[in-house]
Amino acid sequence: MSKPVASRRFSAGIWMFGQLVDRFATDGYGPPVGMPDAVRVAAKVAGIESLDLNYPFWGPGASLAAVRAALDETGLRAQALTPEIYTREFSKGAFTNPDPKVRQKALDLVMAASELGMELGVDYMKLWPGQDGFDYPLQADPRRLWELSVDGVRRVAEAYPTLSFAVEYKPKEPRTHMLFSSAARTLLAIEDVGRDNVGVLIDFGHSMYGAESPAASVELCLSRGKLIDVDLNDNFRSWDDDLTVGSVHIVETLEFLISLTRAGWDRPWKLDQFPFREDPVEAARASITMLSRLLDIAESIDATQLANVQEAQDALAAQALVFDVLFSHWKHGK
Amino acid sequence: MSKPVASRRFSAGIWMFGQLVDRFATDGYGPPVGMPDAVRVAAKVAGIESLDLNYPFWGPGASLAAVRAALDETGLRAQALTPEIYTREFSKGAFTNPDPKVRQKALDLVMAASELGMELGVDYMKLWPGQDGFDYPLQADPRRLWELSVDGVRRVAEAYPTLSFAVEYKPKEPRTHMLFSSAARTLLAIEDVGRDNVGVLIDFGHSMYGAESPAASVELCLSRGKLIDVDLNDNFRSWDDDLTVGSVHIVETLEFLISLTRAGWDRPWKLDQFPFREDPVEAARASITMLSRLLDIAESIDATQLANVQEAQDALAAQALVFDVLFSHWKHGK
Amino acid sequence: MSKPVASRRFSAGIWMFGQLVDRFATDGYGPPVGMPDAVRVAAKVAGIESLDLNYPFWGPGASLAAVRAALDETGLRAQALTPEIYTREFSKGAFTNPDPKVRQKALDLVMAASELGMELGVDYMKLWPGQDGFDYPLQADPRRLWELSVDGVRRVAEAYPTLSFAVEYKPKEPRTHMLFSSAARTLLAIEDVGRDNVGVLIDFGHSMYGAESPAASVELCLSRGKLIDVDLNDNFRSWDDDLTVGSVHIVETLEFLISLTRAGWDRPWKLDQFPFREDPVEAARASITMLSRLLDIAESIDATQLANVQEAQDALAAQALVFDVLFSHWKHGK
Amino acid sequence: MSKPVASRRFSAGIWMFGQLVDRFATDGYGPPVGMPDAVRVAAKVAGIESLDLNYPFWGPGASLAAVRAALDETGLRAQALTPEIYTREFSKGAFTNPDPKVRQKALDLVMAASELGMELGVDYMKLWPGQDGFDYPLQADPRRLWELSVDGVRRVAEAYPTLSFAVEYKPKEPRTHMLFSSAARTLLAIEDVGRDNVGVLIDFGHSMYGAESPAASVELCLSRGKLIDVDLNDNFRSWDDDLTVGSVHIVETLEFLISLTRAGWDRPWKLDQFPFREDPVEAARASITMLSRLLDIAESIDATQLANVQEAQDALAAQALVFDVLFSHWKHGK
Repeated sequence: MSKPVASRRFSAGIWMFGQLVDRFATDGYGPPVGMPDAVRVAAKVAGIESLDLNYPFWGPGASLAAVRAALDETGLRAQALTPEIYTREFSKGAFTNPDPKVRQKALDLVMAASELGMELGVDYMKLWPGQDGFDYPLQADPRRLWELSVDGVRRVAEAYPTLSFAVEYKPKEPRTHMLFSSAARTLLAIEDVGRDNVGVLIDFGHSMYGAESPAASVELCLSRGKLIDVDLNDNFRSWDDDLTVGSVHIVETLEFLISLTRAGWDRPWKLDQFPFREDPVEAARASITMLSRLLDIAESIDATQLANVQEAQDALAAQALVFDVLFSHWKHGK
Repeated sequence: MSKPVASRRFSAGIWMFGQLVDRFATDGYGPPVGMPDAVRVAAKVAGIESLDLNYPFWGPGASLAAVRAALDETGLRAQALTPEIYTREFSKGAFTNPDPKVRQKALDLVMAASELGMELGVDYMKLWPGQDGFDYPLQADPRRLWELSVDGVRRVAEAYPTLSFAVEYKPKEPRTHMLFSSAARTLLAIEDVGRDNVGVLIDFGHSMYGAESPAASVELCLSRGKLIDVDLNDNFRSWDDDLTVGSVHIVETLEFLISLTRAGWDRPWKLDQFPFREDPVEAARASITMLSRLLDIAESIDATQLANVQEAQDALAAQALVFDVLFSHWKHGK
Repeated sequence: MSKPVASRRFSAGIWMFGQLVDRFATDGYGPPVGMPDAVRVAAKVAGIESLDLNYPFWGPGASLAAVRAALDETGLRAQALTPEIYTREFSKGAFTNPDPKVRQKALDLVMAASELGMELGVDYMKLWPGQDGFDYPLQADPRRLWELSVDGVRRVAEAYPTLSFAVEYKPKEPRTHMLFSSAARTLLAIEDVGRDNVGVLIDFGHSMYGAESPAASVELCLSRGKLIDVDLNDNFRSWDDDLTVGSVHIVETLEFLISLTRAGWDRPWKLDQFPFREDPVEAARASITMLSRLLDIAESIDATQLANVQEAQDALAAQALVFDVLFSHWKHGK
Repeated sequence: MSKPVASRRFSAGIWMFGQLVDRFATDGYGPPVGMPDAVRVAAKVAGIESLDLNYPFWGPGASLAAVRAALDETGLRAQALTPEIYTREFSKGAFTNPDPKVRQKALDLVMAASELGMELGVDYMKLWPGQDGFDYPLQADPRRLWELSVDGVRRVAEAYPTLSFAVEYKPKEPRTHMLFSSAARTLLAIEDVGRDNVGVLIDFGHSMYGAESPAASVELCLSRGKLIDVDLNDNFRSWDDDLTVGSVHIVETLEFLISLTRAGWDRPWKLDQFPFREDPVEAARASITMLSRLLDIAESIDATQLANVQEAQDALAAQALVFDVLFSHWKHGK
């Protein structure tokens, strides 16, 4: 086995540099920030080369020209666009809204974002229909929600065959039950979509609190040729806390990176955090430092040995192999 | 045993009639609503006689005079006041804020609210220090957070000895770990506070997703003379979804009501919901209908028989006793 | 829409009438019971017409002749056979065991059970490879576990093309992570198996603590023509407690039954419980009573009205429609 | 602040070296092992100096004389005794059994174990009333379960005033709801017991899947002078998986050790694992290696600096301080 070399490039969701709000601190966890300024804040983080940008652009001074200017000024590029099909207008659903007029508006918004995405040369369009799903038992017919979701994704994928569309799944929030809730459900839905330019985005934290093994979900999506990107963060396995990478789950983050590195992953590692009470630049730096360390460790693990102990499904040997590298310089290292 | 008769009076948290926001639909799940208008909306719900009001009053037109006018006009009274010690200023903590100046501001806000509470004749002041706790492992010294929390509650309880203060506990959100996280921890902290005018508010949903038995938490607080009030809603046991009462968990809601009814509970039943995508008046009505049904059922259960089967810890007999009442009119009823 | 009429026939997993053990009460929650006697105990439950039988038969006096005699004597039939590919020999895996010799033994056992299943005329063979998965991060290569699982299922399905094989999924226990962990993952694996005689068995409780909507999983499997059977029980959404049907979650159980009834489901309703501390006959009766009630209610709901409010995704109206039936005879009924 | 020096001594629950069983592999995850032999197996683990022994002794050849002989032979000592008040006889409860005769038997068993504990010179008696609690909503009156639990603990504590009794709490399993379910509830119950010789045993894993911060629970128990011992293991936050220490949660395990080390903890670190599919000697060694590494790291962290950043509740600074030590020798170390 040749030594895998992982990417050391990084990107981030622009939202982590904007004003964060929740249902209690409705006045925001800090002052308003417009997207052009958020781009400039992001640029302070060494290693970040590209951004996942919401569309429409938000906040003070957020014109296309201003965002472009900020990108040009900082040298950052738009890696992805995320149409905001989860704001007030779409609060009862985007692709699955019971009102066909609102469904059309959601499509229109994604189409407009896709036009811009082509212009900006994004790697992919991210689809996160956060309001698609249901809240109460009995509320909806699951067959209908599925059908509408598949139809929505198909329409945009058909309209922009040269763009890639990455569906980001999440078990819940803002809905108590989201339609694209797991890697496997999303793969099944993508089959039904029946277009080659649709794949999956795995958010590490979503996978964790969805009780998946994130590494296993990576392998599942890779095996079907459907992994478009990953988002990185951490949480306590019960909610999308969007904490800094590796702050809670070093072992499973490392396992996730090993799976991707082994597959020759060469995308920038994208941060998706909500640093409500932390400085976002410092929060991004903490994640990049952790990722750099874990990638160094991942590359230092003997891939053949790991393959052998995993073939034997020897939990203690596999863990020892990895921990002997991780703690190698300590007295009890090896 | 004499037949217990439960209250058929209702109240509600005013927030359920205002504009709801979350971190995705940052433009709100509906248009802005000022508190005076929210009071008028609440008044449309037959059965609601009183309100838990946030302080400071929020939204368009929210002066004290205007809120008072709305209360007078509708005949609703202020059952409780909830000082908003969880907005931007307090986002790193209220009683536990690392900055003593912010801690003082939190105290000042609670004190000002308490003054108003005395004037309005509230039954109790509700303390929900939602930003007190921590997000990351290693972030804080748990002893210090405890000490500051106890100190904060003690100061306000000492300053207003004729007012009752109800501490509402919650496992998480907006913090990943909140200081007052469970009934038992809160009772221990209240011991340390050492003031008679401090007790507990049990939110049914918080208890559920905190993996408590809400009925057992009622009994625990009652046994120490520390239950001040309860909030009602429902969720899926993993987050504070704030759904309508009994929409998911009929059995445990009924058990909760039985415990309270047995204890002679005579407070109005307070609704604490976040009807993001539902009409709040209809959502409140749904809860009151469910509560009315479940209270009828609770009163129809033979208390002596229930005591007997519970003394025997006979799960099937206890469930049969309750379900035979609940389903009594169906073919397979009894 | 024509009025759906649901089955009123019942079956049960034979294990609920045997001796239950766990890791603490290693001497069992009651005395040893052989399978022939367990069949006779099951026959005391009015309404049970068939059984899901483990193979090999367990306990005192458990020969094929004796089990057949007990079936003949009681008039119960074998609805399904469940090969025990999760006992000591298979504790490191059945289809996924790292040792090819053990994998072969697992196949041999399933084949032998299938022979017997053909002889007994079972409706389907149940495959629950409970030890297939992993316990520790890094322990195994998820691709290899998938490949071995698919291969094992394919081999038995190919060998017995006239039998149906139902894969029962479960998130965890006895492994911390099981290979067939969700409805969607199982459907994907079944695609890879590529045989028409393989489908899914949905255990209501597994679906609940896997954070699925059980009703949505029913619809997903039905939509792909892959639902073979369902198992019924209840739990607290975090573990496979195997409690009596509807003892905790009336609403979602009812929703599950509505989905199946709407689809013309005509299988016997199979109970899968572990009544550790309850009389198993009484525990089964409690479940059948609850099911009878909920099926009566399901049939009393106006299907057209429900379809309409679900088309509108109107949570409160859908819930009101169902609760107005459920509580129809109470004072606040309608 | 003087540099804390943590214990490097280890102990283990004897059960991890015996035959493990669960409800599926009822024939055991390996062959039967008698306690005397289990002691000899434990002795193969370098660093283990003492054991927590179940009483009655189990398995082939398990007389008092034989166990004593094995202890003498190996030089291991009995650190604690755990009376088995959770086997078949007590499956409906020990201290809370509805039958007073069974309650008396539970007391008798604990008393007999206490006599032996005095003779063996144990550090403490462990009380884990695993069957005390309830399974179903409505099954029991929580006040009665509390009263019986407090009474049971009080009786044994009164009878053996020179022995320490450590109550081990656990959220669930084998009951769906256990009486001693959290650190705080246990502290409240211990208050009601009213005897100085009763305290708490914190099992790291129980605390994790009870959604506590284990470090915060350590501080809470220490602050009341009630922490008797800790058990170490790991899990996935939703069940008591009893995996090797640090195999999943390095960060919170380290935080836990920091809290104890800071308090001058000098007990042996006790392992409580269930290595169903692993060699128990290797599983214990893996835990001791991890603990040795994490204790080295804990001692290398500047306690004053940590106190300062924790006083500021600066999550990123606190994490950076700890991670800079943990990863100090890597390229991106500091």
